[in-house]
Amino acid sequence: MEETFEPFRGIKNDLRGRLMCYKQDWSSGFNAGIMILAPTTYIFFASAIPVISFGEQLERNTDGVLTAVQTLASTALCGIIHSIIGGQPLLILGVAEPTVLMYTFMFDFAKDRADLGRNMFLAWTGWVCVWTAFLLFLLAILGACSIINRFTRLAGELFGLLIAMLFMQQAIKGLVDEFRIPQREDPRDVASVPSWRFANGMFALVLSFGLLLTALRSRKARSWRYGTGWLRGFIADYGVPLMVLVWTGVSYTSAGGVPRGIPRRLLSPNPWSPGAYQNWTVIKDMLNVPFLYILGAFIPATMIAVLYYFDHSVASQLAQQQEFNLRKPPSFHYDLLLLGFLTLLCGLIGIPPSNGVIPQSPMHTKSLATLKHQLLRNRLVATARQSMSQNSSLSQLYGSMQDAYRQMQTPLIYQEQSARGLKELKDSTVQLASSMGSMDAPVDESMFDIDKEIDDLLPVEVKEQRLSNLLQAMMVAGCVAAMPFLKKIPTSVLWGYFAFMAIESLPGNQFWERILLLFTAPSRRYKVLEDYHATFVETVPFKAITAFTLFQTAYLLVCFGITWIPIAGVLFPLMIMLLVPVRQYILPKLFKGAHLTDLDAAEYEESPAITFNLPTEVDMGRGYSFAETREVLDEIVTRSRGEIKHMNSPKVTSSGGTPATDVRDLSSPRLSEKAYSPRVGELRPERSPRVGGRRAFSPRMGEIGPSKLGDGALNSPMK
Amino acid sequence: MEETFEPFRGIKNDLRGRLMCYKQDWSSGFNAGIMILAPTTYIFFASAIPVISFGEQLERNTDGVLTAVQTLASTALCGIIHSIIGGQPLLILGVAEPTVLMYTFMFDFAKDRADLGRNMFLAWTGWVCVWTAFLLFLLAILGACSIINRFTRLAGELFGLLIAMLFMQQAIKGLVDEFRIPQREDPRDVASVPSWRFANGMFALVLSFGLLLTALRSRKARSWRYGTGWLRGFIADYGVPLMVLVWTGVSYTSAGGVPRGIPRRLLSPNPWSPGAYQNWTVIKDMLNVPFLYILGAFIPATMIAVLYYFDHSVASQLAQQQEFNLRKPPSFHYDLLLLGFLTLLCGLIGIPPSNGVIPQSPMHTKSLATLKHQLLRNRLVATARQSMSQNSSLSQLYGSMQDAYRQMQTPLIYQEQSARGLKELKDSTVQLASSMGSMDAPVDESMFDIDKEIDDLLPVEVKEQRLSNLLQAMMVAGCVAAMPFLKKIPTSVLWGYFAFMAIESLPGNQFWERILLLFTAPSRRYKVLEDYHATFVETVPFKAITAFTLFQTAYLLVCFGITWIPIAGVLFPLMIMLLVPVRQYILPKLFKGAHLTDLDAAEYEESPAITFNLPTEVDMGRGYSFAETREVLDEIVTRSRGEIKHMNSPKVTSSGGTPATDVRDLSSPRLSEKAYSPRVGELRPERSPRVGGRRAFSPRMGEIGPSKLGDGALNSPMK
Repeated sequence: MEETFEPFRGIKNDLRGRLMCYKQDWSSGFNAGIMILAPTTYIFFASAIPVISFGEQLERNTDGVLTAVQTLASTALCGIIHSIIGGQPLLILGVAEPTVLMYTFMFDFAKDRADLGRNMFLAWTGWVCVWTAFLLFLLAILGACSIINRFTRLAGELFGLLIAMLFMQQAIKGLVDEFRIPQREDPRDVASVPSWRFANGMFALVLSFGLLLTALRSRKARSWRYGTGWLRGFIADYGVPLMVLVWTGVSYTSAGGVPRGIPRRLLSPNPWSPGAYQNWTVIKDMLNVPFLYILGAFIPATMIAVLYYFDHSVASQLAQQQEFNLRKPPSFHYDLLLLGFLTLLCGLIGIPPSNGVIPQSPMHTKSLATLKHQLLRNRLVATARQSMSQNSSLSQLYGSMQDAYRQMQTPLIYQEQSARGLKELKDSTVQLASSMGSMDAPVDESMFDIDKEIDDLLPVEVKEQRLSNLLQAMMVAGCVAAMPFLKKIPTSVLWGYFAFMAIESLPGNQFWERILLLFTAPSRRYKVLEDYHATFVETVPFKAITAFTLFQTAYLLVCFGITWIPIAGVLFPLMIMLLVPVRQYILPKLFKGAHLTDLDAAEYEESPAITFNLPTEVDMGRGYSFAETREVLDEIVTRSRGEIKHMNSPKVTSSGGTPATDVRDLSSPRLSEKAYSPRVGELRPERSPRVGGRRAFSPRMGEIGPSKLGDGALNSPMK
Repeated sequence: MEETFEPFRGIKNDLRGRLMCYKQDWSSGFNAGIMILAPTTYIFFASAIPVISFGEQLERNTDGVLTAVQTLASTALCGIIHSIIGGQPLLILGVAEPTVLMYTFMFDFAKDRADLGRNMFLAWTGWVCVWTAFLLFLLAILGACSIINRFTRLAGELFGLLIAMLFMQQAIKGLVDEFRIPQREDPRDVASVPSWRFANGMFALVLSFGLLLTALRSRKARSWRYGTGWLRGFIADYGVPLMVLVWTGVSYTSAGGVPRGIPRRLLSPNPWSPGAYQNWTVIKDMLNVPFLYILGAFIPATMIAVLYYFDHSVASQLAQQQEFNLRKPPSFHYDLLLLGFLTLLCGLIGIPPSNGVIPQSPMHTKSLATLKHQLLRNRLVATARQSMSQNSSLSQLYGSMQDAYRQMQTPLIYQEQSARGLKELKDSTVQLASSMGSMDAPVDESMFDIDKEIDDLLPVEVKEQRLSNLLQAMMVAGCVAAMPFLKKIPTSVLWGYFAFMAIESLPGNQFWERILLLFTAPSRRYKVLEDYHATFVETVPFKAITAFTLFQTAYLLVCFGITWIPIAGVLFPLMIMLLVPVRQYILPKLFKGAHLTDLDAAEYEESPAITFNLPTEVDMGRGYSFAETREVLDEIVTRSRGEIKHMNSPKVTSSGGTPATDVRDLSSPRLSEKAYSPRVGELRPERSPRVGGRRAFSPRMGEIGPSKLGDGALNSPMK
């Protein structure tokens, strides 16, 4: 996408693109049937549990003005609206930690002012939200999101790891607090005597580690050897919520003699109590705010607007990483505009606003990739079984699988795309067949192990739809009503869940994998090469990888340190914004261009070599998105869900344990492919002009349009 | 070994065999240098911790007449004597649970008799030991151990799993008790109030699971990717004792406000206190025991003798399983005779006697196999490095490795044996070379990844020596002096260690693996075939495996149930003895002979086919002990230590998930090989008459002597 700042252009493009697939967004969701509940519950827990915890934090920090009821209400409301009229339905909205910090800071400011105070606090934040919304409108209309592609993998992954660290910090802090006197309990309570406090802390250790270890295990259930397939699938899909239930149950086993407060459980107000809804009428008070404070609200508003612009866009970007092979267009500009409206709405009804959250948004996409894999797999397995029972040959078997696969493609996907997947499918199958014997003999299970082969054949696709987002938001809304039940969850289970979220967000993060690579013993590096690995492992010298990773780690630690500064801490995203000029102007001086391309591709940089070889490029782009993506999916989806199998990729033979540093590699086809497939944006297949009379999708953010490559068959009408 | 009951013949054979390698038993141990400490500490902890725990149990059950000091003293004394003058130095001696149960039963009997009572109890048990020793002498002299080969894999593995269940039961019981009022504490103690009891229980959960999980992980450290090789090796070797230290340290972190009794720690008397040694003079009281009681002592003595005969021989058998590829002869008869003397000695000085223990004895052999692997590996890696630095070709490289390997062989091993290992080494290397390029070009690291290839080349060998056994026994003796330090270990760490021992004893137990196979989803059975697996998985129909395993499981549960019966429980080994007639007369009627051979080879049964094909047999026996054994080592050593790598064995292609039931398989070379390699006894290579003028080793227990095969070059002079 070119960086244009022509007003409304980005919003218009986004709207056009998303409207074309809007109907399909819903039908596709309903087509998935009951299986949609797996990603839905998974994301619901990932969304609701932190929001409840942030709500508790907010309640302590604002003297009870805002509670978990308000944070849940905001998350549910914004989530429902976004899932219905939002642009990118993969994006998950919620009240995030930075918002909590900003509100805490504003409360500390307001409570001591004679003409504001506790009572006028919400009215004043209403004005802050008005200003924030105004700034967000401006940013959206003027196309500020055009420059989001300047946030490369470097910035995105650093931010992701920072969030993981903050979650882990919260988990540890929470656990340590379990040994201390609770902040809001009566200190004369029996549960506060040293013996029970110690017992509570130990119980908390058992519960949180129990949840963490079992939840991590259950996500890998699909690859277990034991138990029936149904059970394994169920545990993998619903294991995490199940474990929250199980460990909450365990917390009740210690009935005899243990006082009520052990273990500590969630504290939240009854949403049905009188006065719980005083904030809904905050709009009436807004005109009573002194004029100077209305103007002054502009200052925190700029901070929040900058924060939201960054947070929202990066969350959206991480949910649409190129590895996921998405087919529907993005919607950065329009979503930022909508966020402005949502912020305004929240401000006017006195609840803290929501924005796009990490790691929930990428978790959402990952879980939908698993769902799509399951759906494709079930269909193809059934087709293959049926075909075999009719004694068909391998080419017939392939034919029927081809048909089935085509039917599973959404109508929006042009034939080319569909054919491509099939070609890949066929090639693998035929290769398999010729290696095993005749193409025309009737196939039996010994020649074609259905369960095994089909897993290997399937490409990465994501079930892109709106239903899971809507449902999870509605479940969050249900939480407000279910408060009495939520109160039964021990806080220690919550800390275990925070740690689980931090760990779940790590696989697939190349920054994290480079850190691990640094700690890998040199004699064991060949193991990294035997596994699925990113290109840089082979093409970039280890020294350069080390230097780049150490730089990034130091930067991460500085960002983490800034979050500890009492008030300025909320501005840590500015540090990450600073990465844009650093990446653009400083890093190219320190690292070779080719290395930098592999470590952190930036599509605004010129790609080296074969720029004009268009036909090759198209083919390679295709090869790329299947071969390379499969590999990356293995890093992303397999590790976290444990199911999708490895494809037989050529293993790199170990050459003494260190990655090859031969310069020849730089001209190898693989790297050349990569040069055309920048990381953050991507070469998404264009809608071919000959299919239908409608206009093509708006090109995705950061895509290398054909215009850069000279004019060719794929020249998009939009450019 | 034929079943001969000619008096003294078995003892004579044993002594002759072991005396020939006696000097080498010591020199080999000292050659290993500092590395001998790894298996030594490993076995020391496995030996000492249960003995301390049994001592505590005995102290409660005998009103303090016997304590952990006595059980440790017995274990140390018997261990030192056995390691110096015993036959099989792989066998570990210790006071075992059955002994504790027998002593409890005898104390209950004696304490209420007016003419015995608490004071004369030890004198009376002295007489029991005298009778027991007499019976053991008789059994040893008359060659009762000749029939030990009738205890097939069926009985041995069932017994092993039963012991694992008893250990696990003790771990669970111990953990549950941590929540209860301690049996010997003052109930008015502050640590006994409900809150501290609950805190203690939770703390115990944290400590025991912490120990269990970290100890299991640390055993796999060698295959970790992170950290230097030195650190990984150190953690793998000393991880378990290290973790006991670490978690004991953790138990002290909760200083502030936590009373002294939390968490509960080991209780044991000060061995330096007056009166702690009154039992040493028990021999003076023995003549004061009424004559009727001296006679009556014969009744418990028969029970103990039967128990020891079985326990001692099976522990020895499990420590010498055919998979370990041992080269030195066994010594069942002589060891039983020595056990008689040790029992007599212990009885006369008033301490409970020790006997061969499970799972410590097989754990000892496993750890020595790992040690030998490390030693061989270090040597070969150094040789290969040196050779490469001299720019030698692959055939030269192989030549120097061949020399190094030969030098590592003990002088007792005839050339043939040595040459065999080398041939294997050469074949693999040459195959590797021809697949990678020229044999004569200088080798570099890219062609021959030293660390990786050498692991794949090495055969399973065990460092058979006496030093580790002696050292561990001396360390147990040191424990008596170190009692004040041992008291710092929390009991909960002990329970975690019991669970660790139970789990460590499972891998390599085919019974356990068959149980797992029953729970493996049919669609995942191909994964078992892809891994290393025993022959039966391929050759025996799944139904037969199921029936056999269910029968064995039912039998196991009956045995386990019997241990719960108050007094008769101690006779559970009789149930396992009953397996001999069951295996010999009943099972062959229920299962096909060929299947039974694969599931549970019994060398007294006739082997089908090719009985007279002697030259083939010799070759196959050799091929077997390298190919097959490697495979089994993978099951035994890799899983528990995580290091030794897989060799490229032909993987079975999945054929629909169930093992092939084709009858053709029964005539495949692999099965034929197996028919000549009975499980419990084995075809150990004979000492060739042409090497030296000395007589050959006594044939090992259960071996199919050449006499069965007609006369040939291998005809042993002993027969």
